[in-house]
Amino acid sequence: MSHKRNVYLNMKSLDEARSLVLDTFGQGASPGVTIVPTAQAVGRILAGPVTARCSSPSFHAAAMDGIAVDAKATFGAHASRPMALRIGKDAFYVNTGNVLPDGVDAVIMIEQVQVLDDQTAQIEAPAFPWQHVRKMGEDIVATELLFARHHRVTPYCVGALLAAGRFEVEVLQRPKVVIIPTGSELVEWQSVTLEQIKPGQVIESNATMLAAMVEAAGGRCDRRSTVGDDPEAIQDAVRQAADESGVMAVLLTGGSSAGSEDFARSAIAESGEVLVHGVTMMPGKPVIVGDVLSTPVFGIPGYPVSAIMAFEQLVHPLIAHWLGQPAPQRELVPVTPTRKIASKLGVEEFVRVKIGRVGQRLVAAPLPRGAGQITSITEADGIIRIPASLEGIDTDIPVNAELLRPAREVEHTIVVVGSHDNTLDLLADEIKIWDPRLTLSSSHVGSMGGLMAVRRGVCHVAGTHLLNEDDGTYNVSYVQDHLTGMDIRLLHLVMRDQGLMVSPGNPKQIADMADLAREDVCMINRQAGSGTRILLDYRLKQQGIDPGTIKGYHEEEYTHMAIAAAVLSGAADVGLGIQAAAKALGLDFIPVVTEQYDLIIPAEYFDSGPIVSLRRAICSATFQKRVLALGGYHTERTGEVLM
Amino acid sequence: MSHKRNVYLNMKSLDEARSLVLDTFGQGASPGVTIVPTAQAVGRILAGPVTARCSSPSFHAAAMDGIAVDAKATFGAHASRPMALRIGKDAFYVNTGNVLPDGVDAVIMIEQVQVLDDQTAQIEAPAFPWQHVRKMGEDIVATELLFARHHRVTPYCVGALLAAGRFEVEVLQRPKVVIIPTGSELVEWQSVTLEQIKPGQVIESNATMLAAMVEAAGGRCDRRSTVGDDPEAIQDAVRQAADESGVMAVLLTGGSSAGSEDFARSAIAESGEVLVHGVTMMPGKPVIVGDVLSTPVFGIPGYPVSAIMAFEQLVHPLIAHWLGQPAPQRELVPVTPTRKIASKLGVEEFVRVKIGRVGQRLVAAPLPRGAGQITSITEADGIIRIPASLEGIDTDIPVNAELLRPAREVEHTIVVVGSHDNTLDLLADEIKIWDPRLTLSSSHVGSMGGLMAVRRGVCHVAGTHLLNEDDGTYNVSYVQDHLTGMDIRLLHLVMRDQGLMVSPGNPKQIADMADLAREDVCMINRQAGSGTRILLDYRLKQQGIDPGTIKGYHEEEYTHMAIAAAVLSGAADVGLGIQAAAKALGLDFIPVVTEQYDLIIPAEYFDSGPIVSLRRAICSATFQKRVLALGGYHTERTGEVLM
Repeated sequence: MSHKRNVYLNMKSLDEARSLVLDTFGQGASPGVTIVPTAQAVGRILAGPVTARCSSPSFHAAAMDGIAVDAKATFGAHASRPMALRIGKDAFYVNTGNVLPDGVDAVIMIEQVQVLDDQTAQIEAPAFPWQHVRKMGEDIVATELLFARHHRVTPYCVGALLAAGRFEVEVLQRPKVVIIPTGSELVEWQSVTLEQIKPGQVIESNATMLAAMVEAAGGRCDRRSTVGDDPEAIQDAVRQAADESGVMAVLLTGGSSAGSEDFARSAIAESGEVLVHGVTMMPGKPVIVGDVLSTPVFGIPGYPVSAIMAFEQLVHPLIAHWLGQPAPQRELVPVTPTRKIASKLGVEEFVRVKIGRVGQRLVAAPLPRGAGQITSITEADGIIRIPASLEGIDTDIPVNAELLRPAREVEHTIVVVGSHDNTLDLLADEIKIWDPRLTLSSSHVGSMGGLMAVRRGVCHVAGTHLLNEDDGTYNVSYVQDHLTGMDIRLLHLVMRDQGLMVSPGNPKQIADMADLAREDVCMINRQAGSGTRILLDYRLKQQGIDPGTIKGYHEEEYTHMAIAAAVLSGAADVGLGIQAAAKALGLDFIPVVTEQYDLIIPAEYFDSGPIVSLRRAICSATFQKRVLALGGYHTERTGEVLM
Repeated sequence: MSHKRNVYLNMKSLDEARSLVLDTFGQGASPGVTIVPTAQAVGRILAGPVTARCSSPSFHAAAMDGIAVDAKATFGAHASRPMALRIGKDAFYVNTGNVLPDGVDAVIMIEQVQVLDDQTAQIEAPAFPWQHVRKMGEDIVATELLFARHHRVTPYCVGALLAAGRFEVEVLQRPKVVIIPTGSELVEWQSVTLEQIKPGQVIESNATMLAAMVEAAGGRCDRRSTVGDDPEAIQDAVRQAADESGVMAVLLTGGSSAGSEDFARSAIAESGEVLVHGVTMMPGKPVIVGDVLSTPVFGIPGYPVSAIMAFEQLVHPLIAHWLGQPAPQRELVPVTPTRKIASKLGVEEFVRVKIGRVGQRLVAAPLPRGAGQITSITEADGIIRIPASLEGIDTDIPVNAELLRPAREVEHTIVVVGSHDNTLDLLADEIKIWDPRLTLSSSHVGSMGGLMAVRRGVCHVAGTHLLNEDDGTYNVSYVQDHLTGMDIRLLHLVMRDQGLMVSPGNPKQIADMADLAREDVCMINRQAGSGTRILLDYRLKQQGIDPGTIKGYHEEEYTHMAIAAAVLSGAADVGLGIQAAAKALGLDFIPVVTEQYDLIIPAEYFDSGPIVSLRRAICSATFQKRVLALGGYHTERTGEVLM
């Protein structure tokens, strides 16, 4: 295997790159116009200004049920001098919406009419001209402007367009975007079952996701089948797509990291020109912008969050521009970060955060930063952009976050920070039964991290399982010591079995904690400050084992599931964690202790609507049944208020 | 024609009616579950919690291009003591994303590797375990919760679901809603041309609009063809639809006003039970809720805005509930009404408003209140709800408005208040060329109303054509007199011909203003405070004509187009207005005067981005060309700054 390197030539700032894209490809190119029936135009963009073809109403219409009369003929009527009108001559029965007969200009409500007989109606008050009449053109006058160019058609618009005689409308065609996934490692989900996928193979997901993003942006996606790591095949696919009539952009997914499989760059360079390779943003840095036969070709990085950022920052604005729409812009809200966020100078960073309102503030908990973690964006409520000129942001000054969900949804988020437990995931699902507005958002920073978050007022709930080594109690003494002076409730969630997770069949014959120090055993550890780490260190001290002698002691993960995954993959022989995680991944489990996992809740929130729903969910039979099914949990005292 | 009346039995408040709907039809009923390919699931609602079927990555993968090594074998390497590694034995070339070979646990970046020959690579620093490795499960661990129940699938979710091995997902079926339009006056737009429509016939638009609203709400619409005013046919259609398997709701449009064609109520009563007839809201009061064979049947009022409110307030929440979604809720913003809004005690009123930011405040200008005016909602940016307990709202206290457009769009609205002119519609379209973010929002309150709006700081621009009777000048003296002390710019927009509009052929032989006083002539007037009204009164005074002798003098309309429509329809013989309006509707025009129409702009906005774009649009050749094409306009000095 030989080694070639691309260098990030033409590295540009995001603003430079976006301007270059819009300047190069935004002018002149137009998606063209098509005519669609108005009823099917919702979501489409009007190609030009639309005027009314007819008035609405298109005739004078009765606005009430009653009799239509010539107002001036009624002027003498009075309670003391009722006036009789001849039906069919002086007066005409009309219902709401009926066309007004010739020669009349007013409607008298039926409630104010005495029907004497089939031929005669009597009134006791005059009508004034045009009373209870919807005049022709009252809503829409023919030839008037209904909508300016590039208006996005809503369901309401459908009503107005039809009423104005516009049964079909000219809309902009949806810009056609071709997506070509590349990479020999990719397998198409359409053609395999999960079980058929081999190690080293990767399920194609970026191109499928981008196709959905193109459609959501108002484009039309033509997703081609995957091309393997064959430079000529990729080059052919690019040139062919760029040359096709009607194709406005080409996205090449994967293969744009600066490695030896970067066929994207050379495929563009062979048939056209590379305008940008590398943008000073993170994720998304390795994006490529090229010009092939005057068609923009984007090399979209392979990591999913990089792919998303490259699309949203460079491709989406171009599609919006073609559709005459303003640059996509998300709502901004001021948030307080729950912790300092460091950032690399010279790079604009997009930090995904969970957001919730705690007290008066919107707080933002940063999610993992890796571009490979799609869950860091599916779980995010917003994005904090850290400009290239900053080395990070602090916790004392609010910053703006771009919202990924409507602001009102964020207002209904229960912010949980602290120790990780699998039952929190169940709660996130069960809470929907009690109030569909609620979202449970958990950040895993360990039990001590949770205590600190409560102290700093940045969460509603902290999950904790902290052992007092002196008396064997859990959590209470920690609350007393670390949250002194705060009015705190402690809600018991579950008892759970912690122990050693090992590969199925326990190949290294690990029996207890003492085996961690064995020469042939490598462990995986939890991060400092987590209850599980404190438990481990306590047991090691009890048994006189020096952590320095344990291989892997300094390798840390943040969740029980990550520990289980490390053992399952062979990265480690053993790790301490909850039985539920071992059971989930089919590992063997050697019990060490049954411990108490509680929720710390500041008293000010304890009786709030969201927390009451949370407590209902916790006390429900369906939740507890699902908890027990996980294995290694005990729910005898679940829901008890401990302090 | 005989006369029967329904009474609004069971009139309920909106909250009562909505609770009754949700309690009666929300429980038990479920749209059912269906399986769709993940790639096609965007916008769908997950039926249950979704967990990962596989981990992602599903193997340890290189996170950099370089060589994969066993970290502990590299511990001796140092710049002073380089270590040679045998390719294929101690080290393996890997690219980003490659599966890590067995027996290695770290990647050294290619930049830090010296390639000695095909067989040998040399390093000058040790690797630590798991450096530059994406561990199995780093993003997603098999069995973990990906999404809670009832999560709405986004394009991002597609990426996560595929990566987690979920190639298809269980989603809730879209609740099926049958819509039956009723009314013998209705013609289907599919089956006619505009020219074929006869007086008294109405283009069906409500059912088509509601169908689009059902789809936007996540439902599936089955729109039946129109049923005429035949009680038995309507009854059959309702019973049949309610009885059909899979139909979750039936909407009957039209026919629900309390008139003699109210077949909706009786159709429901014949086969089931009327639960609600009439809700104390406006628009939307005549809505009917019935239960036919346990299926909810809604009688949707015939006026379009009533139909919208009935759907949004009663049907949409039910669909959302069936889909496990929170009740639909729009973003609220505090706005200052530009004028007092009166409201009827005992009725919750939905006032449509235009919203824009003027200075520090969001100001809200009420649109026409009529339920028949679909444009009052297509032009609206928001809705102010006036509770049943209030008789109206004042201008001094901000109230909440529900936003119909994103808040950031409202921030880009140029608020124009004042006299109506057709060129403002052209500007609303032309402005999009200069900045697609901008919206021009015009309220027609007459020239004096515009001046007052400027004084009260509730608009950016006021259109005005106010004649100084003393010296024949326009606008300048009014600004000086009424906006004393304010820093104001006056921008000339157009000169325009005002005159008398009469029916084609001028059947009443109207020659000049003096003819307005003729016994056989009926006029239509503009509202007091409008420049055109001031012009009329000035001319009448000049010629010694007593307004009291003019028939129709007290009948007022608010726009030139409304005047033209009144003449075209025969409601009046003559009206004073601009030539462009006469030309638009094919009326004859007798010129009276050429007047000056200018824009008043407070200096603080004159150089702001939006107003600069507006001025560019005004000065552009394309705008002026379109103005001249309207007829009756002169643009020689268009764009001049007069003060």
